[in-house]
Amino acid sequence: MTQPSGRLYGLGIGPGDPELLTLKAYRILQAVPVIAYPTLESGKALARAIVADYISADKIEIPMPLPFSVERSSQPYYDIGAEKIAQYLSAGKDVAVLCEGDPFLYGSFMYIFNRLSQKFSTEVVPGISSTMASACALGVPLTYRNDVLSIMPATLPADILTSRLGVADAAVIIKLGRHFAKVRDVLIELGLFDRALYIERATLPNQRIIPINQLQDPEVTYWSLILIPSQWNRC
Amino acid sequence: MTQPSGRLYGLGIGPGDPELLTLKAYRILQAVPVIAYPTLESGKALARAIVADYISADKIEIPMPLPFSVERSSQPYYDIGAEKIAQYLSAGKDVAVLCEGDPFLYGSFMYIFNRLSQKFSTEVVPGISSTMASACALGVPLTYRNDVLSIMPATLPADILTSRLGVADAAVIIKLGRHFAKVRDVLIELGLFDRALYIERATLPNQRIIPINQLQDPEVTYWSLILIPSQWNRC
Repeated sequence: MTQPSGRLYGLGIGPGDPELLTLKAYRILQAVPVIAYPTLESGKALARAIVADYISADKIEIPMPLPFSVERSSQPYYDIGAEKIAQYLSAGKDVAVLCEGDPFLYGSFMYIFNRLSQKFSTEVVPGISSTMASACALGVPLTYRNDVLSIMPATLPADILTSRLGVADAAVIIKLGRHFAKVRDVLIELGLFDRALYIERATLPNQRIIPINQLQDPEVTYWSLILIPSQWNRC
Repeated sequence: MTQPSGRLYGLGIGPGDPELLTLKAYRILQAVPVIAYPTLESGKALARAIVADYISADKIEIPMPLPFSVERSSQPYYDIGAEKIAQYLSAGKDVAVLCEGDPFLYGSFMYIFNRLSQKFSTEVVPGISSTMASACALGVPLTYRNDVLSIMPATLPADILTSRLGVADAAVIIKLGRHFAKVRDVLIELGLFDRALYIERATLPNQRIIPINQLQDPEVTYWSLILIPSQWNRC
């Protein structure tokens, strides 16, 4: 008799506050026998840390080391991670891959999804994105009525950032880190700097909100974003 | 002795599946004595319906009638709703305003927030947006790496839709309804129609996914969206 395969879950676990898991993600996290999550070369596993209090001791864990450097191809790392996950799925065990934020919005889960979803039953559970959580933490409505919202990574070249931000009613610029100075120059050029708000590690215990004009370049972390809220505020 | 005021919560309750509430929104919903939510002129209250099973009988409820027609100004309606909520807050009771999706992403809560957050202690709890939930339900990753994501309402004029969609790597067009024919023409003109995916009432029991070229204009509901996923899929 052939063993039926396990189910693959892409589990959005939100931006950092463990209470921002959905009821559904929480239930699945309790139910599955196997969890997988990315780890940095330092061994740190932010996704696992977010839900650490919800992980029982009997869980089988698959850490997936990823290169943090963008210069290094991550493809072989995802190949190895997907292969390990596939072994458990083939053995009939359900596996949940922990994803910070939302799995399908700039999430590393997509690389696992593209490797395994054709072969195994797969369900993706949406999570709270840091972009939404940051607007709430900053206390600023992001978009009204007819606004166009654009979400973009700070890694883009300055000319692309300029053209995209130039037509956005509201915007979120993610993954700032060492790209902050470039983004700041673009915002100043577009006259958007005075509207820009900075937040890092939204909803985590070490969340920081700093006036953007007081920010020193070297202190800007990768886990930060700039939010430009809508101006349509006559309501 | 003066009574301390109650706290105002903007509670994101997600796109429709009651299990997509966050643990935090669920906890606050249980704890507050008063809830408020928008109702249509028909008396329907979609936000309340989503969490109906979580609402205990002793809860004080504030229905807030809103005009569904965009031709009617909603400002007087929000004035009345905010005034009722303020009465309970002033009497020391915490009030949670139920918001479909995320409170600060095209949400009606912003109108209450703008009227009351200066006077009362306010906390906004992010919710799963239908845009994220739809990508998960459709099983398509939305954005990779350097993609720019644009979210826009179908109510925009055709020329604005054309210019914004023309530079987006991935896009979500919300609130389709009677604007579907206009959006379809724009997508065809831009060569995006073959990439476009249609979903209505994502995560609700009556969710429907229909191939967009089989869609008849009159059947398109307001509670639908078109998703154009990233093309960057070589991973």
